[in-house]
Amino acid sequence: MTRTFPRFLFGGDYNPEQWPRDTWEHDLDLLDAAHVNEATVNVFGWSLLQPDEATYDFTTLDAIMDSVADRGWSVTLATGTAAVPAWLATAYPQAMRVDIDGRRQLFGGRHDFCPSSPDYRRLAQALASRVAERYAHRPEVVCWHVNNEYGNAGGWSSYCFCDECARQFRTWLERKYGMLEALNEAWCTNFWSHTITAWSQIIPPVLAGDAISADKCVISGLQMDYRQFQNEQFLDCYRIERDAIREHDATTPITTNLMGTYKDFDYFAWGREMDVVSWDNYPGMDTQPSFTAMCHDLMRGVGSGKPFMLMEQTPNQQNWFPYCKAKRPGEVGKLSWQAVAHGADTVQFFQLKQSRGGCERFHGAVIGHDDSDRSRTWREVQALGADLESRAAAIMGSTVPAKVAVIFDWSSFWSLEGCVGPTQGLRYPDEVHRFYRALWRRGVAVDMIESTTPLERLRGYDLVVAPALIMVKPGVADTLERYVRGGGRFVTGYMAGIHDGHDLVVEGGYPGELRALTGVWVEEIDALAPGDGIDVRFADGHAAQGGIVASVIEPEGAQAVASYGGSDFYVGTPAVTVNDFGQGRAWFVGTALDEAGMQAVIDPILAEAGIEALDLPDGIEASRRVADDGTVFTFVINVGETPVDGVRVPGVDGALDMGAFAVRVFADGEELAR
Amino acid sequence: MTRTFPRFLFGGDYNPEQWPRDTWEHDLDLLDAAHVNEATVNVFGWSLLQPDEATYDFTTLDAIMDSVADRGWSVTLATGTAAVPAWLATAYPQAMRVDIDGRRQLFGGRHDFCPSSPDYRRLAQALASRVAERYAHRPEVVCWHVNNEYGNAGGWSSYCFCDECARQFRTWLERKYGMLEALNEAWCTNFWSHTITAWSQIIPPVLAGDAISADKCVISGLQMDYRQFQNEQFLDCYRIERDAIREHDATTPITTNLMGTYKDFDYFAWGREMDVVSWDNYPGMDTQPSFTAMCHDLMRGVGSGKPFMLMEQTPNQQNWFPYCKAKRPGEVGKLSWQAVAHGADTVQFFQLKQSRGGCERFHGAVIGHDDSDRSRTWREVQALGADLESRAAAIMGSTVPAKVAVIFDWSSFWSLEGCVGPTQGLRYPDEVHRFYRALWRRGVAVDMIESTTPLERLRGYDLVVAPALIMVKPGVADTLERYVRGGGRFVTGYMAGIHDGHDLVVEGGYPGELRALTGVWVEEIDALAPGDGIDVRFADGHAAQGGIVASVIEPEGAQAVASYGGSDFYVGTPAVTVNDFGQGRAWFVGTALDEAGMQAVIDPILAEAGIEALDLPDGIEASRRVADDGTVFTFVINVGETPVDGVRVPGVDGALDMGAFAVRVFADGEELAR
Amino acid sequence: MTRTFPRFLFGGDYNPEQWPRDTWEHDLDLLDAAHVNEATVNVFGWSLLQPDEATYDFTTLDAIMDSVADRGWSVTLATGTAAVPAWLATAYPQAMRVDIDGRRQLFGGRHDFCPSSPDYRRLAQALASRVAERYAHRPEVVCWHVNNEYGNAGGWSSYCFCDECARQFRTWLERKYGMLEALNEAWCTNFWSHTITAWSQIIPPVLAGDAISADKCVISGLQMDYRQFQNEQFLDCYRIERDAIREHDATTPITTNLMGTYKDFDYFAWGREMDVVSWDNYPGMDTQPSFTAMCHDLMRGVGSGKPFMLMEQTPNQQNWFPYCKAKRPGEVGKLSWQAVAHGADTVQFFQLKQSRGGCERFHGAVIGHDDSDRSRTWREVQALGADLESRAAAIMGSTVPAKVAVIFDWSSFWSLEGCVGPTQGLRYPDEVHRFYRALWRRGVAVDMIESTTPLERLRGYDLVVAPALIMVKPGVADTLERYVRGGGRFVTGYMAGIHDGHDLVVEGGYPGELRALTGVWVEEIDALAPGDGIDVRFADGHAAQGGIVASVIEPEGAQAVASYGGSDFYVGTPAVTVNDFGQGRAWFVGTALDEAGMQAVIDPILAEAGIEALDLPDGIEASRRVADDGTVFTFVINVGETPVDGVRVPGVDGALDMGAFAVRVFADGEELAR
Repeated sequence: MTRTFPRFLFGGDYNPEQWPRDTWEHDLDLLDAAHVNEATVNVFGWSLLQPDEATYDFTTLDAIMDSVADRGWSVTLATGTAAVPAWLATAYPQAMRVDIDGRRQLFGGRHDFCPSSPDYRRLAQALASRVAERYAHRPEVVCWHVNNEYGNAGGWSSYCFCDECARQFRTWLERKYGMLEALNEAWCTNFWSHTITAWSQIIPPVLAGDAISADKCVISGLQMDYRQFQNEQFLDCYRIERDAIREHDATTPITTNLMGTYKDFDYFAWGREMDVVSWDNYPGMDTQPSFTAMCHDLMRGVGSGKPFMLMEQTPNQQNWFPYCKAKRPGEVGKLSWQAVAHGADTVQFFQLKQSRGGCERFHGAVIGHDDSDRSRTWREVQALGADLESRAAAIMGSTVPAKVAVIFDWSSFWSLEGCVGPTQGLRYPDEVHRFYRALWRRGVAVDMIESTTPLERLRGYDLVVAPALIMVKPGVADTLERYVRGGGRFVTGYMAGIHDGHDLVVEGGYPGELRALTGVWVEEIDALAPGDGIDVRFADGHAAQGGIVASVIEPEGAQAVASYGGSDFYVGTPAVTVNDFGQGRAWFVGTALDEAGMQAVIDPILAEAGIEALDLPDGIEASRRVADDGTVFTFVINVGETPVDGVRVPGVDGALDMGAFAVRVFADGEELAR
Repeated sequence: MTRTFPRFLFGGDYNPEQWPRDTWEHDLDLLDAAHVNEATVNVFGWSLLQPDEATYDFTTLDAIMDSVADRGWSVTLATGTAAVPAWLATAYPQAMRVDIDGRRQLFGGRHDFCPSSPDYRRLAQALASRVAERYAHRPEVVCWHVNNEYGNAGGWSSYCFCDECARQFRTWLERKYGMLEALNEAWCTNFWSHTITAWSQIIPPVLAGDAISADKCVISGLQMDYRQFQNEQFLDCYRIERDAIREHDATTPITTNLMGTYKDFDYFAWGREMDVVSWDNYPGMDTQPSFTAMCHDLMRGVGSGKPFMLMEQTPNQQNWFPYCKAKRPGEVGKLSWQAVAHGADTVQFFQLKQSRGGCERFHGAVIGHDDSDRSRTWREVQALGADLESRAAAIMGSTVPAKVAVIFDWSSFWSLEGCVGPTQGLRYPDEVHRFYRALWRRGVAVDMIESTTPLERLRGYDLVVAPALIMVKPGVADTLERYVRGGGRFVTGYMAGIHDGHDLVVEGGYPGELRALTGVWVEEIDALAPGDGIDVRFADGHAAQGGIVASVIEPEGAQAVASYGGSDFYVGTPAVTVNDFGQGRAWFVGTALDEAGMQAVIDPILAEAGIEALDLPDGIEASRRVADDGTVFTFVINVGETPVDGVRVPGVDGALDMGAFAVRVFADGEELAR
Repeated sequence: MTRTFPRFLFGGDYNPEQWPRDTWEHDLDLLDAAHVNEATVNVFGWSLLQPDEATYDFTTLDAIMDSVADRGWSVTLATGTAAVPAWLATAYPQAMRVDIDGRRQLFGGRHDFCPSSPDYRRLAQALASRVAERYAHRPEVVCWHVNNEYGNAGGWSSYCFCDECARQFRTWLERKYGMLEALNEAWCTNFWSHTITAWSQIIPPVLAGDAISADKCVISGLQMDYRQFQNEQFLDCYRIERDAIREHDATTPITTNLMGTYKDFDYFAWGREMDVVSWDNYPGMDTQPSFTAMCHDLMRGVGSGKPFMLMEQTPNQQNWFPYCKAKRPGEVGKLSWQAVAHGADTVQFFQLKQSRGGCERFHGAVIGHDDSDRSRTWREVQALGADLESRAAAIMGSTVPAKVAVIFDWSSFWSLEGCVGPTQGLRYPDEVHRFYRALWRRGVAVDMIESTTPLERLRGYDLVVAPALIMVKPGVADTLERYVRGGGRFVTGYMAGIHDGHDLVVEGGYPGELRALTGVWVEEIDALAPGDGIDVRFADGHAAQGGIVASVIEPEGAQAVASYGGSDFYVGTPAVTVNDFGQGRAWFVGTALDEAGMQAVIDPILAEAGIEALDLPDGIEASRRVADDGTVFTFVINVGETPVDGVRVPGVDGALDMGAFAVRVFADGEELAR
């Protein structure tokens, strides 16, 4: 793997335009001293670069670029289009977003534009082009950063529901379906007299229309199509800027920063349009370390397995959680190294200096409001910078070799959470994580993949896991059958296989097209009240609890691995099954199991697949990256605050005593010195 | 009582238009095998029947009717107007509903029309007329079904607040009040300077107007009048369709399906316009069986005591609860028989076949997504069909003889929940149920009646109960006094008698016009925090807890039946009283008692009234219907899952062992064999 | 101090226009018997006085005035402008308020007008002028009451966001900032590309604009300015009416009733415009008596220490709480005397007679719905009237001498609750109360003052406390430093000093301009989850719990008074500090301490300052007023229901046995007889 960047980037968002020019050198000194070697600039530069439609003014950005270049830093250069200027909102009100409730944005916040607006697109393209034209030749520019966190309108969806979007949506639908008959059939419009008899009758899924909420719609096909359409509109915005840059710079990698399991965009489609994937990692107070690990793997998967950029994280508190706990000593280092362990080749912060105003002013920064090197935050960043300088460069370009794949399917994300019944209790990323965690606990490397991954790639995995894959797109079941028939192992479960590619139920019985493969018929899906559990007893003696839903399973060839306890009418029926299928096997997990239960499912599968499974103590994560030359980097991380002694990991001699948030890195068994 | 239908209808909503024609016979076979003998068709047929304003196309409905008739089934034929077609919404935007927040519906969902719209009314009438004209002669049509669940816009009110409604509301008010002076007085507009000096100044109770919420308004009289007005507008919509049918069919009964204790419509007014009342029974996870029983009795009462139709229930899960528990084995049978026991002469499902798309696709159906007769659901329906076939026909036309009446007053419903103070804790149906449950526990038959029930009908009851009757309309108190004076027994309590017919407080002291009758003055109404209770001690030694409100009572002739305990300032004052009044007696229950407390109130009254009160074990419901020929049908139902042995019921020999959801039916003491 | 009124006013809102003329005398008899000597009339009289724009009709008000004057009562005469008539809303739709969501009010509720509307202002001014012209000569008019509870639109803010407000706001900003450059810098608009390049681009902080919620905004400076602007617009409305009155009456005091810690208006600015401050006291079920005491002190402070009017309280239940507990026997007396003890020279109720209609009909009144003198409420009012008649007159005009000042700063109120991070857990009034309570518990008199109180006034205090003073306006820190340097004592703490006058963070480290004074640098502010606490150990052995936030403090000259316990990374660091500064000392409280903790902070300070601190039992409040002639009135009040025996208070001989809600008043040690 070629290294994407000339060095391990350590830096982040830098907005010196918020301070007087005469403070810059002081700040750069502080950052230099903290081993910062990169600045991401111009993220919100639009109004500064283009004070009115006719005028471009690069004076300030030139100065910023010069001052950063003088330090010998690299630059990630943003196009600056993430927040439109006030003059644009005033001159082009139709370029502003209309929300699901029909309210048009006036001016304020960010991501308040309509992605379909010809005016927004024209002006964003022009700005990107001007910026690229001016700075493409600069050697310090190592990466282009288009816009910023597309979709992040601050807790709300940034989908637009305006008349222009409606117009283009109709065209999009006409292209997709050709004839209204096809659309009516795909949308099942005979339900509640919803037949469309002219394209012009179609309106986006607004609350005054067919939407029940932002997530649910009477005609779910309308919502699924609108999500696809909006995904493409925003992706078009990205492409337009990217292509404008490419006219001036043929080689420097281009990215836009993603947001992990963000719902509104199918990031696999985005990843295909990027040279390098970057993302912003903001775990909350209650985020499990395994969830963060899954996000890293997902972002790496979106980038086809290549190393990715950790574009943003905070060196201390986020500001936008309800209660913002300070990061504990060592925690930022731990989070940074966890990213590297899962494939990151950069560690960047939002942000390098804490702003005085604006709603993010309480967000942590390398230079805090104290404006000095005295803060614990600065000192931890400085130590981390030194650490990365000594230990991270060698790792760059290495990849994560995985024999297990977990499917993350944005269509199933939308479809599952779009269901009205049988429960409100399911959040798609949490259900994927439920399965992922059992693998992570064993130190098993995981690739997060699309459901439409072709057979030849699937065959590279010893195990493919598809949690809550409610939508099975055309061809997917066939590919999975061929994969298993040829000796593969496949795990799926509750809610899988219910919908076809149009979000219509596959008739004949759940799990639809996965029925032959899994050898089960799910006769009913019982829903449990929040907090209620159902006993699950494994044939091998393990006991666990299921929850949220309980599939009532009638085996059609499959064997029971575990069965329901308790006193309900389906007591004694299978809760987990396995089906021999060709040369392989397929498991069906009927209920959302607790950790013990998931482990009881996954552990024997790993064993029979011969996948190395570690017996890691609680709180210890172990993972590997492998360089082109075969060097194996082993990462052992204490993801928590409780010290753990005597940790043993294959390929590492002796037992490791791991303090709070300790990070140990080994190259072919040899520890890398800090 | 003449039987309304030629046979005991067993079937339900059937929408084969959602599937290819070549699947229909397979489905009909499955339904036939399950003893289905009825189909409710065309409920959402509008867009299919009338693809544009100028075109009617009955091809598909003809085919459906033929295929069902071929099976020898009966048909409940809907007019298909419950969801307007997209073309109508596009062509007549003013025909669409405007919600309380001023947002006009575009197209989507259902019940998105304005009930005052001349265009909607004209087009709905035309469709109903065409359908009736075409199918009135068909012998399989045993019932006409107008629209569907008027008011059910999916969790929201379907009241409209548009300009056309405003215009007609002003006319309606002018007709009601004649002069603005009368309106101003009735609305107490001197409060907060609300005087109306021109009819044109009146606006509906929108949130940008006088409404505090959907339930509360600064001028409550405005809201009460708007509720009456909207009730009449929707009822007009029903009448228009009904009359259109009658032009083509002079005799077949016409109904529309109601929704139990649905708040927005005064169903007693609706019942008077229907040949047979039908309703949809959807108990939730936490609905008490006694509440369901009360709903059945209410629907029977709305239909003047005649047998009613159970138009909809689900054969398994509802889909629209947050967590949809599967119906337990036997549960659907229990629910069906409970309906019959309370007066139902049909058992119909929503729906016969589970849809592939649309937001109700996870709602249970006789034929599930498995499309087969293998499912537990199908098998239970089949068993129920056989059971009803053998046991239910004989019961048809029989009625429920009741010596106790409970008043359910929609005006008090609106008025009580419209109060701003003294508590948010009161839900009218729950308070009615609190009293009803104590009767139900004793197997006492109850008629649910209007507050304006005339004296001659009241005199047929040994006991009349009026929970939370906050609005006492003109003449009601006088009728009640004459009823009690003549030997009747009357129970009322907290919050009763406060308002006159204009929702104005009756001055002079609570309970207003009921003060002489009850012999108490309620000096204060203390409100308790949620979860707080107050001790209540009965003179006969029973102890109980009150809650929500505690009336501080000064007796004016009444005797204390129970008094408050605890340490509050009104400790020792009466919590429950009884007043001798003429030949009868009147009780006042000052606080919302727990089950033990309500039983301690009701049991002695039943005893002194000589009303048969059974000592039923927990979970057992007992009830009766009586045929014209005097045959007494006794129903004993285990409404729960816990088996109960040794149940003894008058008129039934020996002790009954009742398994989970067991249903036993006896005709003059002789058990009906399944 | 001159007495503001000729007698101790005992009465309240009186709206006889809601009843027939022939009932008035009966009501006046009842009120007379209850010792009522004042009526507040015409509060919502607009539609009655001016039935259309061209017509004024004083017939009814004349009659009311006559009937009250006949009784020899005093009158507080309102201008009647608090709720606009329907005809005004119809004729001038632009005069109606537009809410933060862009919805224009139509008609209904109250406070539905736009404060910037020229039409509203013209018409309100005209009405005030007419009323004043007609009644100014009447001797019974002892007070003018402008409008009513400005801002109380019923749970919502009454700020307007209409185009007219936007227009005037731009002018206001132009006046304030002069140049756009200054505005851009003050608002930190380089954040998220918010640069304003034309005044016309500025829009109010609506939800479709820059607002995140009613309390938070992306550019907080925009919100702070809009709050100031709206505060001034409403204050203008008050001034316009006040000045209209003054043209007809040069001397009678003018007021408008305030609402304690109401957020939307800076009441110190309002107090400067009033002859006498009046306010409405409505403690809830859970309001602590010390919070009520603080509100009284705040209202007295707003009126520069002069006696104030208790314009409204309820003689029994409020109606608008979710659960309205009846006032316990003696409770209204206690609340009334608590007001007097803190400086009230009137005791007035909302209202004298309970209305039959409207959303406040369940609000308590002297004459209840029973319309008689039999109610407990009437009897308690009557007893209170007699009591005040005998004990209160002598106290009038006396003032509360305080050696301790607590700063209540509306800008910090808005700023603190406008922060996005580090916690949502802080409510400004609660944090002020946290400090206030520790003083109240010791019977220490407190003046509530502005942050900009000049040095000469500060020097009158032995101790100045500034909780959560997040915004330090220009000059404030300097004044505080000079105050302490000269020997003063100053207490502040968490969240203090962060923002400058533009709501921008003061760089260099928290607490900004208070850093030298307090001798600490707050390196980080950790946020605790709700319910979490942190141990705090005082050097003198006391133990306590902190919460919400924990400041991580690095002393810069200050000494630790208490330090953090527990196991967090800042264990052992100072939680509370004290800094010697010149002749005085400054304390910094790092975390929101529980009651024990606050007492452990405050008690030693009182001791070293030589401020008399009483050892009062729980539930006992003690306070003083001092007359011009030097008479000291001592008030001892049992603020709770639990009797407390043996209470000793300086200047009062012997021990007092205080029953529930008991009130004892002493003049120079001699008890005033009831």
